[in-house]
Amino acid sequence: MEQFENVTIVKKANVYFDGKVTSRAVLFPNGEKKTLGIMMPGEYEFGTSEKEIMEILAGDLEVQFPGDDSWIHITGGQSFEVPANASFKLKIKELTDYCCSYIK
Amino acid sequence: MEQFENVTIVKKANVYFDGKVTSRAVLFPNGEKKTLGIMMPGEYEFGTSEKEIMEILAGDLEVQFPGDDSWIHITGGQSFEVPANASFKLKIKELTDYCCSYIK
Repeated sequence: MEQFENVTIVKKANVYFDGKVTSRAVLFPNGEKKTLGIMMPGEYEFGTSEKEIMEILAGDLEVQFPGDDSWIHITGGQSFEVPANASFKLKIKELTDYCCSYIK
Repeated sequence: MEQFENVTIVKKANVYFDGKVTSRAVLFPNGEKKTLGIMMPGEYEFGTSEKEIMEILAGDLEVQFPGDDSWIHITGGQSFEVPANASFKLKIKELTDYCCSYIK
């Protein structure tokens, strides 16, 4: 059972897309920030301000990266990166549990 | 921005009712456990093994306590308690963000 120790968690959830995407922020002693979240089935577009590493803990989705028309299939156990100041699209096929790391 | 400091968070979410209810466990240095979760609109029945204090961070719901036919209206900022080894029913009217404390 993987866990993050000695961290701070913000109590209130972040809610997007009418609650179909929700997450909570986890803050690390070294200043690093991650969010742990859930995405319900649907199609979403997100914008990044920092580089993001999306680790898919469970689920099934397709991702379309900035400037690329193709859709890449991703399932639980896989990760993908999105550059800073970009937008990317997701088609969530099955409930997806994720951990997003923000890279300064 | 209320937060829990110096805690352990289990990375993977707990998923109930086809993902309409999800939560993550937060473990405190003193052995205390809470879960932070999201409930989508719907009707659910839960069973307790320990006494639970449900703090509603945001949302709108009705709760039916064990052995009582009436429904109590609860909104964000309110809390309610459920005894150990009991079942209770919730009607979630609006997306509900909660913090559940397990009392030994």
